[in-house]
Formats: sequence, structure tokens, C-alpha cells
Amino acid sequence: MKAYQELSQRFRRLGLLGDALAVLNWDTAAMMPDGGAPMRAAQSATLSVLIHEQVTAPRVGELLAAADAESLDDWQRANLAEMRRTHVHATAVPPDLVERLSVASSECEMAWRAARPANDFAGLRSRLATVLELTRAQAEAKAAALGCSPYDALLDQYEPGGRAADIDRLFGELEGFLPALTQRVLEHQRAHPAPLPLDGPFDVAAQRALGLQLMAALGFDFEHGRLDVSHHPFCGGTPDDVRITTRFDLDDFTSALMGVLHETGHALYERGLPAAWRNQPVGAARGMSLHESQSLLVEMQACRSREFAIFCAPLVRAAFGRDGPAWQPDNLHRLSTRVEPGLIRVDADEVTYPAHVILRYRLERALLGGDLALADLPGAWRDGMQALLGIVPSDDTDGCLQDIHWPSGAWGYFPTYTLGAMTAAQLFQAARAALPGLMDDLARGDFSRLLGWLRAHVHEKGSRFSAAEIVTQATGAPLGVAAFKRHLEARYLEAA
Amino acid sequence: MKAYQELSQRFRRLGLLGDALAVLNWDTAAMMPDGGAPMRAAQSATLSVLIHEQVTAPRVGELLAAADAESLDDWQRANLAEMRRTHVHATAVPPDLVERLSVASSECEMAWRAARPANDFAGLRSRLATVLELTRAQAEAKAAALGCSPYDALLDQYEPGGRAADIDRLFGELEGFLPALTQRVLEHQRAHPAPLPLDGPFDVAAQRALGLQLMAALGFDFEHGRLDVSHHPFCGGTPDDVRITTRFDLDDFTSALMGVLHETGHALYERGLPAAWRNQPVGAARGMSLHESQSLLVEMQACRSREFAIFCAPLVRAAFGRDGPAWQPDNLHRLSTRVEPGLIRVDADEVTYPAHVILRYRLERALLGGDLALADLPGAWRDGMQALLGIVPSDDTDGCLQDIHWPSGAWGYFPTYTLGAMTAAQLFQAARAALPGLMDDLARGDFSRLLGWLRAHVHEKGSRFSAAEIVTQATGAPLGVAAFKRHLEARYLEAA
Repeated sequence: MKAYQELSQRFRRLGLLGDALAVLNWDTAAMMPDGGAPMRAAQSATLSVLIHEQVTAPRVGELLAAADAESLDDWQRANLAEMRRTHVHATAVPPDLVERLSVASSECEMAWRAARPANDFAGLRSRLATVLELTRAQAEAKAAALGCSPYDALLDQYEPGGRAADIDRLFGELEGFLPALTQRVLEHQRAHPAPLPLDGPFDVAAQRALGLQLMAALGFDFEHGRLDVSHHPFCGGTPDDVRITTRFDLDDFTSALMGVLHETGHALYERGLPAAWRNQPVGAARGMSLHESQSLLVEMQACRSREFAIFCAPLVRAAFGRDGPAWQPDNLHRLSTRVEPGLIRVDADEVTYPAHVILRYRLERALLGGDLALADLPGAWRDGMQALLGIVPSDDTDGCLQDIHWPSGAWGYFPTYTLGAMTAAQLFQAARAALPGLMDDLARGDFSRLLGWLRAHVHEKGSRFSAAEIVTQATGAPLGVAAFKRHLEARYLEAA
Repeated sequence: MKAYQELSQRFRRLGLLGDALAVLNWDTAAMMPDGGAPMRAAQSATLSVLIHEQVTAPRVGELLAAADAESLDDWQRANLAEMRRTHVHATAVPPDLVERLSVASSECEMAWRAARPANDFAGLRSRLATVLELTRAQAEAKAAALGCSPYDALLDQYEPGGRAADIDRLFGELEGFLPALTQRVLEHQRAHPAPLPLDGPFDVAAQRALGLQLMAALGFDFEHGRLDVSHHPFCGGTPDDVRITTRFDLDDFTSALMGVLHETGHALYERGLPAAWRNQPVGAARGMSLHESQSLLVEMQACRSREFAIFCAPLVRAAFGRDGPAWQPDNLHRLSTRVEPGLIRVDADEVTYPAHVILRYRLERALLGGDLALADLPGAWRDGMQALLGIVPSDDTDGCLQDIHWPSGAWGYFPTYTLGAMTAAQLFQAARAALPGLMDDLARGDFSRLLGWLRAHVHEKGSRFSAAEIVTQATGAPLGVAAFKRHLEARYLEAA
């Protein structure tokens, strides 16, 4: 296995350079003063180019071919497959197209930052058209190399092995019950008194201390990670040094807190990846839907449960020195599970969130396939919102301009959010079945059995199997909508 | 100038990778959780190896030869010379020696961290002997490539163009008056009442706010830099994103504050380097003595002056909500200029600091030259302290084990501290001569003319000239001891 060993050394170096880039990206968002931005962009680009050069080196192609004939165990074989996937993605696209798409996406993202507040879709259109055209070319090049459809080739960047045919089926099933379910939930809410508001302001130091306390309870390893502040919360860093961020709002502590819990879910996944395979492709997280499933399992399944509110309420009261009816578990739980159709995806509750994703998935497929002209996107957006959620944005700022994904070149990403939500529900259902009394654990703030189950059934698998295989092995069935549906009905329709 | 242009592109990439490494190093000291250390070491080593591979690429040697014949302006010519210096240093040492020295230094530094508190020089000796032996081999290899003596080859790593012959002469002159001067200063101090102590504790947030206020007054550019906390204060990052650190002591705000002012001096230099030459070798700071001169000019020359105390006293009183005789400018000034011979270099005042450096310089030359055996170092240290400062450590913890430099492989570094102090005095004397009323500026907290002078005469020169040339151009004379002597006498012997 000489070829495999050389590949393994080369990919270890690539992994370490990728780690360095991840730390720089965290720094850019959480620490860097504004004036550092231009040179940081040059530093990151230099590292990215270096990584790309090394992944696409002809020697890597030769070694991949030679390693196929070598005697490898299952993990090594899976590692080799991931190396090949990385190499194919990187070599499929001609360097000049990579360069043009990178420049066009950067420029379009910059233009989007100005166009969104100005409600100026027309002004963004020509740049977005360039990104779309180059993305289509990229998709076709990758499709030829991967032997799949162009959209599946884009999807494969975020969701290895993901297929639009499966998404069509799953999203179709969701659409079959979500609109009616949403109406029933809203009626159910109206039949009960509204939750009491929590009046601020909420001291930022107290918010941060509470966040750290709950992170620790969930099992976040502060020897190998930290919490900071950035404009857009994210989970970055590396498995041995996980950096999560949040943004504090003086008037509403719940947004930062739920964000912290969400990112903690991502962080636990990264931290739990197989230590024996650090900096090898098979040691990495298995795609965005599984990653999102880990954040949503923690945030939505575990931490918006009635039991979590029981654990959390006294800590919240102590953190802010408050008391009274609004600060009891029942009210906190009702606040954290409030449903209201809205225009903005990132503010959506878990019942209406899938509608936002389905809309974007269908629109991006239509745009890429040439079935929808960019000029018609604002109208198609409004029609879709009307059909899916029964509300219509009065402008593009809160409509088709709200997301950074398309301007920045991230096409094929959106469906992973809702695949993640469904996966979270199915995994959590399996965990509850395997761990009797799990919800009582949560009410006591004991997440150890849950984390142990996730470690064994998800985190430690790395990229040894596909996301679909991991879900099937962990839950006994392929990914479906049933667990998600059952979860929503149980949480939102049962009597309070 | 095709060869020069290709070199320029290659060194730009190297510069950007060096920037990335600098940010990682800052993160390691200021942000990283402990558990991230092993993988961070691997990330940094990977970047270092990459940089080394690219500097030593045969193509660089060919291009350097070809560029010599090209038509270049003065800056380009100086840039080419720095490229060559970098290439020669990197190629002079066989790769296996680089590797062995790197491993031996890391291991010896780790061993030193345990040996120092345990007062266990004997336990460190064999590892230190290995570092010494490999450093000697490195020095000989570099000496052959550079055409200088082995010690000068080590010195050249930190002080390009520096020569032991010059240091011998300058340190000899210092030794001619410093012991007597120190005695006179101590007598002078005894003849006056002791300064009043400042009683703590001092709130860390208030210390930090005061530090930021003074940094701003000095001209620190917060659009391109920040202040954080680390165990050992330093100035890191890049010219467009300068990261300085300090360490706060609840009981003594002056240590952190003077540290902040010191690092601000380094930061102003980095920030003032010629913007047109970013990420080119000629755009970098010109060696460690000039760098130290900028921190000591700010800390020692400007900020321990009587005038600075006048500016600073009301800000200090406001920061900590204190008042009374101890908090008046005269007392603050006397506290900040207190002289007391001590065992520890990093705690030394500016009068006794050179003795610490002279001792280390002579000992490291003797060790490298084979004139002193490692087994005899503790005794030689005690003898040297007795001769130079009249005090003797009772153990090696406060003696020859106190510095990280030798265990970590930094031989040839020590003299730059005192060269920097002398350079600071000579530059500040020239600035005062060129800027009448400068000290009145400082009493008002106006550092703009001083910074402008430093920008024009030091910072913006980058590595266009040698340190010796920069000092001569800025002050009209080669570096000497006269200005330093005059400064010490004026500050420490004149009537209060």
C-alpha cells in the first residue's frame, strides 16, 4: 500500500492547510479589525490556491489509480474514495472557470450586500446572471466527471451522494402535509393564551455566562473549543479546537441562546469525529445535511422540548435575576415553540422553515435548468411564498434578495437545511427508543446518554459511510418524513 | 526584469503564507484552548515546511542569478538583496540538520519549562548540549554561505549585517561607565525619599480601557490592529492587522501598562512599514535591534519621561478613581524610573538591563566557541552577575535557567535588546533636535510629530537600508553609546 501511504501523507498536509484556513476564517469573522480585510482575503486566497494546486497535482491522480489495486481495510478504502471525490471535484473544472467563478461570486456577493438593503434586484441581476451562467458551466463539468446530473453535481459538493430525485420525493411528501399542519398549529395556538413576553434588557455578560453553562451541560469540551461573537453565528475551527460564535441582543436573550445551542450541536459533531482519522478525508464530517441534523437535533429536538425548559428555567432566572410567571418552564417552552409564518427564512420556526427551503430548492433548479429567467425570479418568489406560506413580501429585500447563497455561488446548498431537520427528527426518535427515560435525563440537564448515542451512531462514523447509510444504520430505516411529521404533531398539536 | 518579476510573485506568496503563520501564532498565544496545541503545532509546522520548500526551490536560485543582470531601481535592488539573504539562509543548512535542530529545540524548550521551576540545570544539560552542538553546526554552515564568522551568521538571522566586532566595541564602552553610573544612580535615589506605592487592586477592565486610551494617543490604528491578553506579551500579526498582547496584574497596573506602551512601539513600526512593499522582503522590518529600538523609544524614552507622567497622571487617576499624593505626576514618574539591580532580566530597569545582556552575549559566544563547557555555565553565570551587577543568584532558576532563548535555539538574539536601547536613545535625541518643543507635545499627549518623524526616518524605510545605515541617516552618526549615556545621566542623576 505504498501509493495509499503517500496519498495519506499528502492529504494530511492538505488537511492541516485546511485547518489553518479554517482558523483564519474564524479570525476574519470573530477577531479581525476591518482594515485587515484586503490582506486577509489575499492570505486566504493564497492558501486556497495552494490547496487546489496540491489536490489537482498529476501525481495525486497517478497515486489514486495505483492505490486501487492495493490491499486496504474498510476505513482505508473509504478514505481512498473520499480522496478520489475531492480530486475529481477539483480537477473536473478548468482552472480558468474556477478563477472566473471565484471572482464573479466575490463581486456578486459584494454587490448583494448593497443591493439587499436598497431593494435593488434589477441592479444585481447582471452580476447574478454571470454567477448563474458560470455555476451552470461548473455543474456541467462536474456532472461529466462524476457521472450524474448537473444539479446533483452541485449538490454533491455539500451533500456527497445526495440526489435530486430523492429530494423531490421527500419534499413532495412534506408538501403533502405541512400546509395543513401549519394551519392546524396556528388554530391550536389561537385556542390557547399567548405566552407572556420576557422583558429586557439582558446583560450581555449574563447572557454569555448562561450560554457557557448550557454548552458545558451539553458536553461542549472547553479544552478543545471556545465561544466568541460574530455578526453571523457559525461553527468553525477544527475538531480539536472548535470555535463557535453567537451574536448577543440586549433586548432578547433567546436568539443568542438558541443560536449557541444550535452551534453547540455542530461543535459536538466536529469534536466527536474519529480521532484516529484526523486530517484524513474519511475523518471529516459527512456532508451538510448530517451536520445540520446535529445542530437541529440539539436545538430543535432536545432544547426546545418541554423537558429542557424544566432544566433551563431556574438557570435562566438565576442568570438574569428574574422571576414570576413568564419565567416558568411552561411559558419558556411556549415561547421557544411559537409558530408564525414569516417572510424571512433565518427567523422561521421549525414548522414553517421547510416551506422556505422548498421554495428555494425549486427556484434554483428552475434557474439552473433554464426554466426560469432571472428577470422573472421576483415574481416567481412571490408566487411561491403565496402558494407555500400564504404570505407575500412587499419587496425583494424580504423576498428573493434575502439570502447570501446564490450571489456567493452556493447553489445546491439549500435542501440540506430541511434534509437536516428531517434527519434530526429520525435520529432523535431512534435515540429515544434506544435510551428509555432520555427525556427525563434532559429535564435534569443530563445529556451524557444522548451524546454517547450520537458519538457512537453518527460522530465517530466520520465519512466512513454515506449520510444515507449512516441514517439507515442508526435508525433502521432510510431517511423519510414520518419521524419529522410525528415530531411536529406531538410538539405543536398536543394539548399544553 | 522578467526574473525579478517572477521572484516578486513568488515572494509575495511566501509573504502571505508568513502572514497566515503569524496569525496562527498570535491565535496560539492569545486565543487557542490548551487542547488545540498538538494539532496547531502540526498546522504551523506544515506551513513552515511549505515556506521552506518554496524559498529553497532550485528555481529561486536560478531566478536570483538571472535577476542580477536586470535593470532594477534602488528599492527593487534592495528587495532582490533581501530575497537572496532569505534564500541563502534557507539553503545554507542541510535539510536533515534543519529538521534535527527543530526537533531538538522543541524538546529542549519543553524540558526547560519543567527544569526552570525545578532548578534542575543538570537535568536539562544533555538536551541543551544537543541544541548547542546542532546550533554550532548550523552556524558553521551559514557562515560558509554568508562569508562571515559562525557567530555573525547566527546574529545575521536576527540582525542582518550585524557583526560581533561592533558589538564587542559598543558593549565594551557600555561596560566602561555603566557600573559606576549604576552606583551613582543608587546613591542619588537613596538621597531622596522613596516614591509612594500605588495600592491596588486595579480592576482589569479599567486597566484595559486605560491601555486602549494610551495606545490611541500614541497613534495605534485600531482599524488595523487590536489588544488582547497572553501569558507573554508580544507584538504579532501583520502590518495591516497588528496584534499586541499584555498580561494584567490585579495588584500592579503599571506592569501591564508599560508592556502595552512597549508593544505599541513595536506595533507602530509594523504599521508604518512601506505600504507599497507589503509582502515583499524589502517591505519587512529591518531586524530586531531596530524593532526593539521602536518599542524602547516609545516605552523608555517617551513614556517614562517626566512629561509623559504629566499627561498620564489625570488619566490614571480617572481610570481607577484614585487621588492623592501618590497619584501625582512626580510620584508616578519616580515609580516608573526606579532603579534596582536584580536577578531577572525581564524585570530589569533600563540602567541595569544592559548588564544582563552583556553577560548573556559573552556566555553564548564562549559556549558556541567551545571556550566554556555547559557544565560550567551556572558558575560562570554567578561570576558574571557578581562582576557586572554585584549580586548573585542563589539558584539556577533565577540564574542561567531564566531565559527561553538558548533552550529554544535562539542563539545570537540577546545583543539586539541592548543595541535597541542604544538605538532608541540616539533616535530620540535626533527627534528632539529636529522637533523643538517635542517634550511639551508629550506633556499634552500629542505624539503626532514624534510618530511622523519615526515614520519618515525609520518605519517607511522598511529593509531598504541596513539598520546601521538607517541609524546614520536618521541621526547623522553611526550607532554609539553617547546618546544612551547622556539619556541615563539626564534621567537618573539630575535633581528631581
